[in-house]
Amino acid sequence: MNGLRVAVVGATGAVGQVCLGILEERAFPAASIRVCASERSWGKKLWVNGQELTLEEATPELLGEVDLVFIAAGSDTSRELAPIAAERGAMVIDKSAAFRMDPAVPLVVPEVNAGDLDGHRGIVSTPNCSTTPLVMALKPLDEVNRVTRVTVATYQAVSGTGAAAQEELRVQSGQVLGGDAAQPDVYPHQIAFNVLPHVADFLDSGYTTEEMKMVFETRKILHRPDLAVSATCVRVPVMVSHSEAVHLEFEHPMSAEEVSEVLGKAPGVKLLDEPSSKVYPMPFDVAGQDPVYVGRVRRDESHPNGIVMWLVLDNLRKGAALNAVQIAEEMMSKGLLPRGRAA
Amino acid sequence: MNGLRVAVVGATGAVGQVCLGILEERAFPAASIRVCASERSWGKKLWVNGQELTLEEATPELLGEVDLVFIAAGSDTSRELAPIAAERGAMVIDKSAAFRMDPAVPLVVPEVNAGDLDGHRGIVSTPNCSTTPLVMALKPLDEVNRVTRVTVATYQAVSGTGAAAQEELRVQSGQVLGGDAAQPDVYPHQIAFNVLPHVADFLDSGYTTEEMKMVFETRKILHRPDLAVSATCVRVPVMVSHSEAVHLEFEHPMSAEEVSEVLGKAPGVKLLDEPSSKVYPMPFDVAGQDPVYVGRVRRDESHPNGIVMWLVLDNLRKGAALNAVQIAEEMMSKGLLPRGRAA
Repeated sequence: MNGLRVAVVGATGAVGQVCLGILEERAFPAASIRVCASERSWGKKLWVNGQELTLEEATPELLGEVDLVFIAAGSDTSRELAPIAAERGAMVIDKSAAFRMDPAVPLVVPEVNAGDLDGHRGIVSTPNCSTTPLVMALKPLDEVNRVTRVTVATYQAVSGTGAAAQEELRVQSGQVLGGDAAQPDVYPHQIAFNVLPHVADFLDSGYTTEEMKMVFETRKILHRPDLAVSATCVRVPVMVSHSEAVHLEFEHPMSAEEVSEVLGKAPGVKLLDEPSSKVYPMPFDVAGQDPVYVGRVRRDESHPNGIVMWLVLDNLRKGAALNAVQIAEEMMSKGLLPRGRAA
Repeated sequence: MNGLRVAVVGATGAVGQVCLGILEERAFPAASIRVCASERSWGKKLWVNGQELTLEEATPELLGEVDLVFIAAGSDTSRELAPIAAERGAMVIDKSAAFRMDPAVPLVVPEVNAGDLDGHRGIVSTPNCSTTPLVMALKPLDEVNRVTRVTVATYQAVSGTGAAAQEELRVQSGQVLGGDAAQPDVYPHQIAFNVLPHVADFLDSGYTTEEMKMVFETRKILHRPDLAVSATCVRVPVMVSHSEAVHLEFEHPMSAEEVSEVLGKAPGVKLLDEPSSKVYPMPFDVAGQDPVYVGRVRRDESHPNGIVMWLVLDNLRKGAALNAVQIAEEMMSKGLLPRGRAA
């Protein structure tokens, strides 16, 4: 065969756009790419890989004519389309939360738990963008010194909400600089020059769904159902890249040097940790980069077995589109893609 | 007597300006106010309380002619001027870090440890703006259930650095919105649409001086030299008000309801915690307000005796100028101000 027939559902969104760019950058072996979006975009054109493509409806027919479908269009769309595509023999790599906690669906970061792909039934989920950097840093450490507890505070970029949120930050920032009142629309409160301790929806427990995703997804990906995790997820006025202040507790004491040595060798992780030279990861620099950046690794002075660190990743790339494309690449190398079609 | 002779050193700075406004707002019993600043401002005029004041040099003579000196002009200025003023019989309330950890200098948040004022020797320090909200929330809780460990991640406004940093955020934001590269000056890296895991200076331990202030000042103010504290201090593109994501561990389990009940009665603390109605403290709303706002109080699912919460305070008011003025008011009501002058 000469490549995969690929469809991208949600091709006009923040993640979909980055996904198409990454397929091109990585010379992904696509024989064809179909681009799907919501009704208002049907018929419009999109340039991908030097080719003009027409935005289409993601019909069952279309989903049955491709080998691989990336869905990045929200949970409702995923719940509707993923089973249809999977049943028709396509491999679905889904960005939404719809199937992540489904025991029948692998939830995968290739550097962490590629082995989980073997059990797939046509749908694989890619984690929430705030989970991915955490598991990539935790996995190699957990292998040498069991992690017993993780607490984290996030600094999440507006692009995690989508392209409209980026525009809202841009417009509101101009309003505030011009001395006008900001007009909230995508977010319940002004995001420009402000901070919202609120990502996704609140639960009765006082946690948000975003915070609980970090708990449940981390446990599933690390195969550590017992792992104690607690998060505070916060939206900050940053366009791209999520940052996380992380406190880890280990079974045994571990020096910052030992932690840095492990992380320095970890796949997909890059240490950027020379504070005396003012070198540490920041969202503005990490935007557009592939690795999870780690800095500010130090002993947690408040716990004998504790470590504190600072993580930053591009939420649209490794936090979403890049991880999805890497899952597809990993499945190809494992011979899982394209799926054998029933006659 | 008909009021205190007051001097404000650093009167043109971010904290000095707010201090003058607060003296006016609270009808502080000042018989006179002298305003001092650095050389380039001498002779310039300032309107305070409907009076035009002339900016002066803070000479030993001037400091000897007043009853009360607020210093908000950096540690070097404080180290130089505070001992002179104190020796000449003035009471010094100092915003800088210069004397905070000096055992002979009370470090005071009036709602928390007003009793420490009794031992003063002419200088009282007001804490770092990131310490103040923490001790105000911790103190009433520690009284009912001993706090054993605190970890915190901050979201600090640029006004904590000063007026020039506010201007830098404004200018850089315009540059970025206009498609230009931002020009860093006050901060080592771009602050507009970015996040810097770096406040103050790095130590060999990997912590910053700001982070260690939170440790040492919290212990001193709470009279808890044993308290385990660890912080990550982060600068965010917000003009005014610091936010903090706080994990607490107690000696005994405590429900979120119990914690909220205690905090709801705590002096200077205001609960703003109705997440289902999207009500939680945010820096943009808290700017210009006096209390420490607390929201998102919930059980820490990762620790049997843990609580997580979100604090926001106006770093220029309660984080600096307001606390300094409140110290003066408390000292007056205790009869400690004006100081009895040696004959």
